[in-house]
Amino acid sequence: MIRIALDASGGDQAPEAPVSGALQAVQELSSGLEVTLVGRRAEIEALLQSHGSTPEGIKVVDAPETIGMAEQPLRAIRKKQQSSVVVGLGLHKRGEADAFVSAGNTGAVMAASTLLLGLHKGIERPAIGTVLPTGGDPVLVLDAGANVDCSPRELLGFARLGAVYARDVLGRAEPTVGLLNIGQEDGKGNAAVREAHGLLRACGSFRFVGNVEGGDILREKCDVFVCDGFVGNVVLKFYESVGRMFAGLLQQELDGEMAQRESVARLFRFLDYSSYGGAPLLGVRGVPVVCHGRSSARAFKNAIRLAVQAATNHLSQDIGAELAHGAVA
Amino acid sequence: MIRIALDASGGDQAPEAPVSGALQAVQELSSGLEVTLVGRRAEIEALLQSHGSTPEGIKVVDAPETIGMAEQPLRAIRKKQQSSVVVGLGLHKRGEADAFVSAGNTGAVMAASTLLLGLHKGIERPAIGTVLPTGGDPVLVLDAGANVDCSPRELLGFARLGAVYARDVLGRAEPTVGLLNIGQEDGKGNAAVREAHGLLRACGSFRFVGNVEGGDILREKCDVFVCDGFVGNVVLKFYESVGRMFAGLLQQELDGEMAQRESVARLFRFLDYSSYGGAPLLGVRGVPVVCHGRSSARAFKNAIRLAVQAATNHLSQDIGAELAHGAVA
Repeated sequence: MIRIALDASGGDQAPEAPVSGALQAVQELSSGLEVTLVGRRAEIEALLQSHGSTPEGIKVVDAPETIGMAEQPLRAIRKKQQSSVVVGLGLHKRGEADAFVSAGNTGAVMAASTLLLGLHKGIERPAIGTVLPTGGDPVLVLDAGANVDCSPRELLGFARLGAVYARDVLGRAEPTVGLLNIGQEDGKGNAAVREAHGLLRACGSFRFVGNVEGGDILREKCDVFVCDGFVGNVVLKFYESVGRMFAGLLQQELDGEMAQRESVARLFRFLDYSSYGGAPLLGVRGVPVVCHGRSSARAFKNAIRLAVQAATNHLSQDIGAELAHGAVA
Repeated sequence: MIRIALDASGGDQAPEAPVSGALQAVQELSSGLEVTLVGRRAEIEALLQSHGSTPEGIKVVDAPETIGMAEQPLRAIRKKQQSSVVVGLGLHKRGEADAFVSAGNTGAVMAASTLLLGLHKGIERPAIGTVLPTGGDPVLVLDAGANVDCSPRELLGFARLGAVYARDVLGRAEPTVGLLNIGQEDGKGNAAVREAHGLLRACGSFRFVGNVEGGDILREKCDVFVCDGFVGNVVLKFYESVGRMFAGLLQQELDGEMAQRESVARLFRFLDYSSYGGAPLLGVRGVPVVCHGRSSARAFKNAIRLAVQAATNHLSQDIGAELAHGAVA
């Protein structure tokens, strides 16, 4: 049985969206899944009742406090010990949950994960690995915003974390890794990337395909795209907005009858980035998964699916084993 | 009369695409436009003949040598004095052309522009300003790849160059400028961007809207998006590939009859990034415009249109006047 703790107070549409997402998950995903909703008990139970009889596999744990999106992370988690983030990660730490999923304040989830669960050897700060939809198989881009001004050794660390993720969660038996750059030739790029190139080439933990460019991401030139969190964050947010823009244009150009066709609806669903759910914080001893603040019920369901996959395939243990081979920083 | 020198040997589809683009430009754009095709004369003249009678406004200047895409820029321009890049920029330098447009080796055009035309006071290296199509008005992103590891002062320089460009070429009377970052709050970002924030806020040459994010580009949150050339290049190439991917998906999902509808064709044209033509090298004393290697005839026509606009509105002189107000680096 896999047990997921879900932050029912996190995100713009909480608690409705996390509660609906949890219900969808236990109904649609693998049998033997248990989702514990962590948040204001009375509110959650009222919502569950409005959905009819609560299925087996749904549990509730009370966490009366909520950390706001604008709160300073460290201060908030110290002050709000009864917040959904601190209580949910506590369940994970004590082994009462195999993963924790939250669309709340990312900085707070990151700080609380670091403090409560701890980091693997050689990691100084978690990295955010984000899966981007492509026309074919999804690809992993990291770091997606947790780390800026990255050293060459940090970029190497992202490559190693990403390769384990690609194996355990994306199911790529022999993950390929590329270094995001402004040209394919060796020697291209800024100072950190030029030096990182040699480190990635020398590391034997994955197949290094060399420098890759912005246009190679959707062409799925490799499974894992390594970059500084500044670059990754800009690309990620840009991609989300492209989906919305194209969906808007398409809607404008097609007349109503056509826009309702199943083929076109499929395209809109693809453009809806939320289908890809959450991003695990890599390097943490455990499986904390952060979701977009705008997450819908469907996004929560998919984030739970991802957390199940990561926990089932022992992502954190495998990362620990990979990092034991040699220091990354 | 505006006279444009066009590199007829540059790009994957040369000389056909530049020659066709030049013909389209003199027929469709403003009267009084003269385009000088610079390249292998015999080839160009044969192509012109195959198109029928050559219209007034098309001239040919012989340049028997071509600089390859993989050649080392400085060495190539020194060795190949009869190349289309060196000959074309020579016409511009001597005042026989008001701008030079090329889809050839970007590094060679940049090096030859710097050496032959010179840079404005305070500029150490040209910046590439790229116009991105949005659902509404296009926006300018710079630098798009010429400069990496940028200092805060260089980022300020991009803001000033971009604001003049937005006024003269995009027609924005009071350009707004944003600093591309990983969050909107002050104090976000890497070291260079955090320091640049104060410089942009203090500079009185444009309306500074503060930090902007990857998702704000297509939302047209401002006219000019300032970033390091590493970030700009990754976003630019990513965007090009998104257009191609979505066009492919759309084609797959829609049946043949529907894909041929005018409304859908319009969408495909929007996704065809080439409609936006070229990018001027900003900071150079003159108007050198670089185009994508894949440029089609339509892309060349649009790059010529952009060069006409820049030359007509005295972009280079206005940049000189802006930079005279204070050192940028």
